Formats: sequence, C-alpha cells, structure tokens
Amino acid sequence: MTDFIYRRQFSIEWGHCDPAGIVFNGRFFEFFDRSAWLMFEAALGIAPQRLFDTYDLLGIPIVDAGATFKTTVKFGDLVDAEARISEFGRASLTVSHRLLVGGVLAVEGHEKRVWAGKHPDDSSRMKAKPIPDEVIAKFKSA
Amino acid sequence: MTDFIYRRQFSIEWGHCDPAGIVFNGRFFEFFDRSAWLMFEAALGIAPQRLFDTYDLLGIPIVDAGATFKTTVKFGDLVDAEARISEFGRASLTVSHRLLVGGVLAVEGHEKRVWAGKHPDDSSRMKAKPIPDEVIAKFKSA
Amino acid sequence: MTDFIYRRQFSIEWGHCDPAGIVFNGRFFEFFDRSAWLMFEAALGIAPQRLFDTYDLLGIPIVDAGATFKTTVKFGDLVDAEARISEFGRASLTVSHRLLVGGVLAVEGHEKRVWAGKHPDDSSRMKAKPIPDEVIAKFKSA
Amino acid sequence: MTDFIYRRQFSIEWGHCDPAGIVFNGRFFEFFDRSAWLMFEAALGIAPQRLFDTYDLLGIPIVDAGATFKTTVKFGDLVDAEARISEFGRASLTVSHRLLVGGVLAVEGHEKRVWAGKHPDDSSRMKAKPIPDEVIAKFKSA
Repeated sequence: MTDFIYRRQFSIEWGHCDPAGIVFNGRFFEFFDRSAWLMFEAALGIAPQRLFDTYDLLGIPIVDAGATFKTTVKFGDLVDAEARISEFGRASLTVSHRLLVGGVLAVEGHEKRVWAGKHPDDSSRMKAKPIPDEVIAKFKSA
Repeated sequence: MTDFIYRRQFSIEWGHCDPAGIVFNGRFFEFFDRSAWLMFEAALGIAPQRLFDTYDLLGIPIVDAGATFKTTVKFGDLVDAEARISEFGRASLTVSHRLLVGGVLAVEGHEKRVWAGKHPDDSSRMKAKPIPDEVIAKFKSA
Repeated sequence: MTDFIYRRQFSIEWGHCDPAGIVFNGRFFEFFDRSAWLMFEAALGIAPQRLFDTYDLLGIPIVDAGATFKTTVKFGDLVDAEARISEFGRASLTVSHRLLVGGVLAVEGHEKRVWAGKHPDDSSRMKAKPIPDEVIAKFKSA
Repeated sequence: MTDFIYRRQFSIEWGHCDPAGIVFNGRFFEFFDRSAWLMFEAALGIAPQRLFDTYDLLGIPIVDAGATFKTTVKFGDLVDAEARISEFGRASLTVSHRLLVGGVLAVEGHEKRVWAGKHPDDSSRMKAKPIPDEVIAKFKSA
C-alpha cells in the first residue's frame, strides 16, 4: 500500500441508478476508472489526456477488477471516494478504491492495470513494459 | 456449479468501446447483468419484468462482482456468453460468467446476488430471504 | 427564456469517449440530465432526491430532446455547462443547454420535460399536472 | 427518404432504465447509434469494424441528434426498431429512426452524420468528404 491517497467527492446522479433506485453496478467501475485517472493526475502532475504521451503508453488496461457492495448507494448520495495504489508489480499496478457515504464504507473495489506500450512487432497491439521508477517514487513519497 | 448453462451471442458495439478501441470495463458488468436476467428467464420461464412480482422480490442486488480480462475485446467482436449459477446459498447465489471471442476465453467474471424481499419493518428497504426450493430445482434439473 | 442560468464545470472522462476519442453522443444527454437536476436544486433549493416528494411528482420525463454538435468534445476537455428554462408551458418546460470548451460553443441542446404526477385512475402511471406558480416564480426572479 | 429500411428487434434491459422504471433518455441515442451501424452493414455488406477502412474514414460523427418520446418505454419491452437514411447531402446524411412497442410508435428520432476522412493538413483531425455514389446507390436500389 503506497502512501499516496487520492480523494474526491461526488454525488450520485439520476442516470447512475436503476429501477430499484440504487446505483447500477457497472457504474461503480466508471467511478473507479475516473478516480484512477485523477489519482495519476494528482500524484504525477500530468493531465489525464497527456498521460499516454508522457510515458509512451498505448493504454493502462484493466486485467482484473472487482467490488464488494456493503450498503446500497442511491440517488443523491454524497460519496467520498478514495483511491490508492495498493501494489506495484514490474509492469502492473493495483488501484484500491473505497467509497464512503455519510462516513460509512459502502463499496470496496480494485482495478489491476497493466502499464502498456506499443508491441515492438505490431504498433497497434499493446505490450506490458516496466513502470518507471520515477512514477513509483511519486506514489511512495507523496 | 449447477447443471444449467445459459448461452447467448452478441456483438461489441461502437458505444461499448473507449478511446483505446476496446470495451470499457464497466460495460462488461452490463453484459453480465443482462445475461443473469436472461439466464433466469431461460431456467424459470419467467420474463425479466415479471421476476420480482413472481417471487415477491424488491430486487436481486449484487453484493460482490468481479472480472478477469484475459484478452482484449474490441469493436465488432462476436461474443459467446455463458452464465450459470456456480453456488446457491440460503438467500444468495453466485452467477459465473464466461465470455469467449472466436472460441477463446476472453473474460471470466462473477456476480454474487442476494434474493431480497421487502424488509418487514420498512417496505422501502430490502431484506434477504430464502431462495425457494423450486427455483434451485430448476437450475439443478435443467 | 427565464432569467435564471445554472452554470457548472466538469471534465470529459475516458469513459465518456468512443474509439474516435470524442464524446459518445448519448453521453451528452446524461450531461444535460445532470445539469437539469442541479438547475432545479440551484433555483428551488431542493436536493434532487427530494424534488419528487416535494412537488408530489412521479417524474419529470423528457418528451423531446435534441442537440447540435458544433465542435468535437474530447477526453480531458474542460466543459462550461449552462442550463436555463427557455419555455414554461402549463404542465411542461423546456431546458436549454449550452456546453462551451475554451470559451467556444461546442454543443447546444434542449430537453422538453413534463411535470408529471400520479394518474388519478392508476397510481403507477404518470399524468401531466400544472407547474406550480411558485416554481415558475423562482426561475423568473432568480 | 431512401428505399432501404433496416429493421431489428431488441428488448429493454434493466440497465437501460432509470429509477422511474423507464429507459433513460441517453440510452435511446445508443440504440440509434447501434441501428445506424447495422443499417450500414445491411445495406453495404460491410461489417461495422471494417466501415472506416473500406471508405478511408476517420469517423461518421453526429452533428445533430434528436428524439421525440411519445410513450414511455420500460424494462422488458420488446422494441421494433427501424432505421433509414432520410436525406443524403454531399458529405452528410440523416438517419431517421423509429421505435415501436407492441406495434405502437414510441420514439421517433434522427442523427445527422458527416462522412469524415482525414484532414489534409492534420491527419488527426476530421474533414468532411463526398459520400461515394456507390454508397448512395446501395440505399436507393436496395
């Protein structure tokens, strides 16, 4: 678990919710994705739309994602979201997410992502590449 | 793992994909949700919009969901989706999902869902209730 | 055109964009919907999740929506959104939306919505009902 | 209005619907987009993921979209969708959409799209270019 914790606050929208009046589960993975981009921006000082160019990436695709839903989250709820990198591999990283509503943990989740550049044999395909030490350092020292 | 396997085929749409040209991860959980409803319809013979009334449910909310992405899935890919119930608890069940593209396993995932009726003290809240034996039997004998 | 203008700022997310790297058109209607709820909150002082109860509504469903896309809006763009009520009918209203990027008008749109309560003969169905004068006044005098 | 009419049938999913139990309006524009791609495939015999390469396009972006919602469309509804090209311009076309539920017209809409190749001065930008006569002919004679 790195030291750097990214935090943001947002409200649950009408369009996030299903006929049961609660957030449709796929939407939580949008919230996680959004937090991950903003976490990188906060830690590295690089705007989301500049991240790939800066590190010569084709993407940071997700290879594993999951969430545990402890309490229902519903229209109008104010969410406190936290994201941090819970593990760095050589060419991958895991982002851990927590969503709290009224100070109570509502959702815990994760995204395991690969640091992916162009494949040397085919520039349209991705290939994992080592995460730069400077990137890791920004999350450690932050 | 129950005997009943629900299978469907669908194609990846433009709107499912992100700027990397691959399916945005939150969309897979829409695909899983859709398969779960259709699996219930196929096993129980009850249309999705009748399921709650038939069993006096307020919902079958997801308490845990996850997916492993083994290969990228992209615009135009034809997906063979399989869904089955891998575990029945007293008041919960786990739906296991597999998505294949060109016969190759691309995504594996799961949704743990609760069989939820009205809370006796507050009809707007959900409370887990036992899954009827007849429901379980339909998945076993199918 | 009423006097009250609601303004907010937001950024375009990765998940909003399609393989062409621009916002998928359906997402703009999510942005409009979100702005409409927040406009009501700003003008009336009522949180979105309280709006229906406050005015005994079943919904404020959209009967007509449209948008003109003047310039592409892409990942990372900072959007200045404006929403105002451009017309009040007896039981309907039209919300006009403008999205600017870098001070340039990128998208213009509208939503015509009906002020809908329960149908007297069937409480599960909606029926248009007159918009209260106090609601209209809040948008005029704001 | 061209002669070619593309028709498909689909059901409204749980995830398409909002807390009022009806389709969230942004979703209709996903349905339209999907129909447009499939209409091109049906008329031209080209799979969606091959369309851009075949005609050297960067996209067929939407410059104007709209819909009129005549009746509510809800979870489980079986939709008959029709799409046709109602107008060809030199470098643009308008797709007209109709959605029927139980034989009753529920939604009418349109998408005005531009036939866009690479800009000669900047290959990352789009520039409208003439629609090939062979494309137009396929919609006329179909």
